[in-house]
Amino acid sequence: MAQKSLLASRKFIKPSFSYLIEKKRDGGEFSDEEIRFIVDSILDKEIPEFQMAALAMAIFFQGMSAQETAVLAEEMMLSGEVIDLSKLTRPKIAKYSTGGVGDKTTLVLAPLAAACGVIMPAMNGVDENFVISNLDKLSAINKFQPDMELKEFIKQLDTVGCAIVTQHAEIAPVDGILYDLRQSTATIPSLQLITASVLAKKLSEGAEGLVVDVKWGNGSYIKDVEQAKQLARSITRVGRSMKRRCVALVTDMNQPLGDTVGTGLELMEAVELLKGEGPEDLKELVLKLGMEIVRLAGVAGSTLSAKQTVQKHLKDGTALAKFKEMIEAQGGDASFIDDPEKMPKAKYVRKLPAPKRGYVHTINAGQIARGVQLLGQKKNGKYDPSVGVSEIKKVGTQVKQGEPLMMIHYNDEAKLDTALEYLRSAYRLAPKRPNPPELIVERVA
Amino acid sequence: MAQKSLLASRKFIKPSFSYLIEKKRDGGEFSDEEIRFIVDSILDKEIPEFQMAALAMAIFFQGMSAQETAVLAEEMMLSGEVIDLSKLTRPKIAKYSTGGVGDKTTLVLAPLAAACGVIMPAMNGVDENFVISNLDKLSAINKFQPDMELKEFIKQLDTVGCAIVTQHAEIAPVDGILYDLRQSTATIPSLQLITASVLAKKLSEGAEGLVVDVKWGNGSYIKDVEQAKQLARSITRVGRSMKRRCVALVTDMNQPLGDTVGTGLELMEAVELLKGEGPEDLKELVLKLGMEIVRLAGVAGSTLSAKQTVQKHLKDGTALAKFKEMIEAQGGDASFIDDPEKMPKAKYVRKLPAPKRGYVHTINAGQIARGVQLLGQKKNGKYDPSVGVSEIKKVGTQVKQGEPLMMIHYNDEAKLDTALEYLRSAYRLAPKRPNPPELIVERVA
Repeated sequence: MAQKSLLASRKFIKPSFSYLIEKKRDGGEFSDEEIRFIVDSILDKEIPEFQMAALAMAIFFQGMSAQETAVLAEEMMLSGEVIDLSKLTRPKIAKYSTGGVGDKTTLVLAPLAAACGVIMPAMNGVDENFVISNLDKLSAINKFQPDMELKEFIKQLDTVGCAIVTQHAEIAPVDGILYDLRQSTATIPSLQLITASVLAKKLSEGAEGLVVDVKWGNGSYIKDVEQAKQLARSITRVGRSMKRRCVALVTDMNQPLGDTVGTGLELMEAVELLKGEGPEDLKELVLKLGMEIVRLAGVAGSTLSAKQTVQKHLKDGTALAKFKEMIEAQGGDASFIDDPEKMPKAKYVRKLPAPKRGYVHTINAGQIARGVQLLGQKKNGKYDPSVGVSEIKKVGTQVKQGEPLMMIHYNDEAKLDTALEYLRSAYRLAPKRPNPPELIVERVA
Repeated sequence: MAQKSLLASRKFIKPSFSYLIEKKRDGGEFSDEEIRFIVDSILDKEIPEFQMAALAMAIFFQGMSAQETAVLAEEMMLSGEVIDLSKLTRPKIAKYSTGGVGDKTTLVLAPLAAACGVIMPAMNGVDENFVISNLDKLSAINKFQPDMELKEFIKQLDTVGCAIVTQHAEIAPVDGILYDLRQSTATIPSLQLITASVLAKKLSEGAEGLVVDVKWGNGSYIKDVEQAKQLARSITRVGRSMKRRCVALVTDMNQPLGDTVGTGLELMEAVELLKGEGPEDLKELVLKLGMEIVRLAGVAGSTLSAKQTVQKHLKDGTALAKFKEMIEAQGGDASFIDDPEKMPKAKYVRKLPAPKRGYVHTINAGQIARGVQLLGQKKNGKYDPSVGVSEIKKVGTQVKQGEPLMMIHYNDEAKLDTALEYLRSAYRLAPKRPNPPELIVERVA
């Protein structure tokens, strides 16, 4: 047919969106050009939202190849600003977590990395709505500024070595559009869409390498450990095909990390960690993620030297000094670090009593997060910095009847009852000591 | 928990659309209330199109139970007017076809049914865009009026016994909204959505029973015979659960039906059929569908008596008289029936020559429809009544080189070349006689 030869001689012909949806629906693989076209169409608002939604759902069911995912990540990255940190000579490593309850590792790892000579850009994007973000926690610091121009961001990365800021509107804007749509169309848990989203955002921040913490469990949006492993493999594989060094740890999120949940309380726990103290699980996770960061950066060659490097900077106070430096560079009052009394305190503190004697068998971390959210989140979406829970009894702990499972810090008695329901129902006690959950399930490099 | 008992005591609580999408995405079954809520939300435009699209795609992948499908059909039906024909004492049977190339059976069956004492309401909705609809064909008749108020429609059904009209905006409006969305989101081929759509529309027209023609093949949007069988079973099963009598035939659409494709040409072929003449395949299909109609209506008890009833009304001219009566009731000039010269003729008629000798091995009916569409469709979407193809050589016919595969009727020479490409490429000739395609593959009752 004359048509065929005509088609062959032409360059890329814009397909219809219906055709693209149909292709994916039937399990087809998009060409690089097709993905570029989709991303351009999202950016230019040429694809209607309903077609974008149908496409996202088709991707949820049919998946994407590593090549499709890499091109999607690359194109979403190129849809906005890609921060150029090439003039900064130190290695640049980003860290990404899928989000967890009580997870304050980024607050520790950013200054820790900086202390070890590794630049860590950290922009905070959208999170699961029940998870308290790093910026929520930092907002407990008087005068702390989360928003920053890109130029200032680069400058702070140069001088301080780390910066935790609000994700800039110019970073991967297509990812932002797609993410919003995915949130309201039940298409968040697509392995490949998550992979592309993470890589587009984090690599836009100028990192050469990426350490990923994929959390699974009742406090994560990933409830299944196999899915978490798949996501870890997907991000590292696609990241490598984008020529970035990537390591992922699959970690437990079947109970809160550390002993506190809440903005100010978590901030103070982060300070403890930066002094080399704090609860065991968090110390372990900070150490392991920190080791990955310094090894990926090339600052340490062996596992042993990585461990020594991380431990040294936690012990000698340089990591804590970097934390102060970062807070002050972002306009915050860091005096609470040396004078914890400056951190606002809740009016009331009461225990959550154990209803019977036994061992803490399981804790639903998601329920605890929702309870804290109820207690602490104000109508403007901001958290009350003094509110939260502390001294959380972790899985495997033995308790007597009436002994506190946690301490609840609150200001508003009217909110207590509903919050108590969530907190209480998060705990299951059993007569026998359970096997402790494995904190680090898998390492994927 | 206090919450649980609270929940149990409440009535239906409106779920979020995201929750509903997620439920279906994960293979859940909607409750009757949930489906009612979805339909209401579509009607009231409360569900955003992008959530509707994601939901439709999730349904495409996860399917729906017979119960879900029946409730969806029922609720979509109740979203608009449901025509009440209970005052008309004769049986009312509707006919539905998934659409095929050269299919003029409805033009024959509506007056045939009426002649047999069966009322047949026939509203024409949206069709696959390359298929010429019944109303396209009737528009070749001078002054024929396809639009009618519901009152007039009922009146004509009473007096004439049949009416072929444009689907009223008040019929199953939610189906219309959903169908439009499905067309641009590659979610048309969902077995359950098709089932619900067909039943919502056809049962709104006041029928007590439904005869369905599910076509499979290259001229249908259903390319796979197994899918066609599934759809036939789905419609009849769900229809029965809605307390309507339903029969479906799965029929071949791997070549055009009859010898003509085009509006005026097909109309004239329908007249031939109403005289008991015309091509074998069409005669056979009209007979079989006609027999199902009269049996479902209870006009004939046995297969033999059904056959005799149908054949009698084709032979004695009563079916043709009903056709005239219907045309005139709808304002049309029926004089072309007795005086075919009154039907507009194309300026040019030329043959499509066979490129070599052999047997017609396959015909791509879809390609032929597109060729005719190119030749005959005007910019306003209307068809030129004189344009089309006739004397189509069917599968299994032996041809010599240069002998016509069909005759092409056209007015615009500029359009001929592209149309010829489609028509030519629709034919495959082979040296050996192929097995003839089976016209009626399965009967599902």
